[in-house]
Amino acid sequence: MRGMGSIPAGAAARRQVGIDLGGTSIKAGVVTDSGAIVTEDNFDPGFARGPQAVLDTLADIFKRLGGGEQLGIGVPGLLDRARGHLIASPNLPGFVDLGVKHELARRVGLAPERVHVENDANAAAVGELWLGAGRGTRDALLVTLGTGIGGGLILNGELYAGSGMAGEVGHVVVDPHGPPCGCGKRGCVETLASATAARRRALAAQLPPDKPGDLPTLTARARSGSLAELALLREIGRDLGRGLGPVVCLLDLSTFVFGGGFSAALDLLEPGIREGLDERSYSGRGPHVRLLQATLGPSAGWIGAARVALLAHP
Amino acid sequence: MRGMGSIPAGAAARRQVGIDLGGTSIKAGVVTDSGAIVTEDNFDPGFARGPQAVLDTLADIFKRLGGGEQLGIGVPGLLDRARGHLIASPNLPGFVDLGVKHELARRVGLAPERVHVENDANAAAVGELWLGAGRGTRDALLVTLGTGIGGGLILNGELYAGSGMAGEVGHVVVDPHGPPCGCGKRGCVETLASATAARRRALAAQLPPDKPGDLPTLTARARSGSLAELALLREIGRDLGRGLGPVVCLLDLSTFVFGGGFSAALDLLEPGIREGLDERSYSGRGPHVRLLQATLGPSAGWIGAARVALLAHP
Repeated sequence: MRGMGSIPAGAAARRQVGIDLGGTSIKAGVVTDSGAIVTEDNFDPGFARGPQAVLDTLADIFKRLGGGEQLGIGVPGLLDRARGHLIASPNLPGFVDLGVKHELARRVGLAPERVHVENDANAAAVGELWLGAGRGTRDALLVTLGTGIGGGLILNGELYAGSGMAGEVGHVVVDPHGPPCGCGKRGCVETLASATAARRRALAAQLPPDKPGDLPTLTARARSGSLAELALLREIGRDLGRGLGPVVCLLDLSTFVFGGGFSAALDLLEPGIREGLDERSYSGRGPHVRLLQATLGPSAGWIGAARVALLAHP
Repeated sequence: MRGMGSIPAGAAARRQVGIDLGGTSIKAGVVTDSGAIVTEDNFDPGFARGPQAVLDTLADIFKRLGGGEQLGIGVPGLLDRARGHLIASPNLPGFVDLGVKHELARRVGLAPERVHVENDANAAAVGELWLGAGRGTRDALLVTLGTGIGGGLILNGELYAGSGMAGEVGHVVVDPHGPPCGCGKRGCVETLASATAARRRALAAQLPPDKPGDLPTLTARARSGSLAELALLREIGRDLGRGLGPVVCLLDLSTFVFGGGFSAALDLLEPGIREGLDERSYSGRGPHVRLLQATLGPSAGWIGAARVALLAHP
């Protein structure tokens, strides 16, 4: 059993299905309310058959996993959270203006208020805080270092999503004269410290010399002590830390959990992150900040989605 | 009746005493749970007689206002919130390491968990969101433009204080090469846009020409259309907006309430604030942001302290 809680004597554990709809596959599983993973599996979404068929598949997965009184699901893209409506999803063509909550509720025979649709990054944050890195922490930011930089914010032990866009640390401006960002601004932290940005910076610096821009080789070289690669990763870390500084000032946050592919380099980024944090947050807070690597990997999403559903119906 | 709520038929309104211990006076009053101000008054803290005598005075005020089942009090300075302990207070000499919660509980005959001690800026934020500007808003930041820049953060309708330092927007770094800040960093927004900073910038710019550095004259000149003064206030507003940008990114916040003396110039700062916000937050959010002037003035603190106590014992 991986969870924090324990099952009260005499009480049966509640089982909860969670589903994570990803860009290429569906991960889903069953977890108990005390955090024991009962089962976990990958499913083929069959995107080629269109959104309605994918919704059928999701409903079928829920039933195959044993169903239950509520469903939690994470989806990528821009959500109208109140309505459980997927407004748009850059990575899922055709998934535009889709009433995920109501469509799924109808298919699985639950009331719509029993179907909980959450942004995938937010769901992953809930999962990591529950059963992964930062277990038992009430306040933390999950920072996903991938193509861009995503974020999921947990405050008082619960997801804080604002109208749906909270936690978007990737768009904190670190350098207003920096590279242009997809969001329309310049110098957002994701233009300086995402995996994409790291690749671009490595390429510009011709690092590592034999394979410029290749991040696994870059980090391997740094780990074996090569100074140029170490210095570049420290510099990238510093920009990341500068982006996290305001999080410390505003939220007095002391736990950051890093997920996504580029978080594998966290140990090499950390010295820079701490320098950047120190430069951009008020005195004395930096050393108290914990920088943790996510531990649930691609399971974080479905586990978090299940947790959201459990928390909504205690 | 100024409140949002209404009294359920047949139920008597609950009355709550709130106290705000300030640097020169005590403001206290009684408010009902539905937001009706019953009474409000100023009291002399008698600081010269030392902290224990001030605590006696505070207890006496509580009793004089009718007492009750719980007490809410705002105090300036660094708090250990969990213990209700005032660690240090720059503006109240001698108020060091003071067990405010327990000392007051003993004096008024309440259990310590019935005495709620809050930071004064946080209490003011709770007050403004309840009965002042932003009434009915669940998520907002109160920004106090005074000697420094303080902040109080309300999320999901409740104060979010972290370990006690959350909301400190004054120390978001706007320009890492900017003026040194008391916190040890450079270019914190309070070094660029507090009343103190505005005075310094006006003096450096020799504005207004006949009374350089005088803020009331500066704003009056700007309001009568003088271009140099308007431009300076716009520039100060821009730095303020740059400091608020990360708040929008991280918290998806759309309401800012400005208090403190310099907030009287909000109308003149606003064009700059919006430019700075637009520069430092992701596309499309800026126009949805509301910039409101606080309306409760120096009453916000005691009203908020009372509200904190009411919310803790529903």
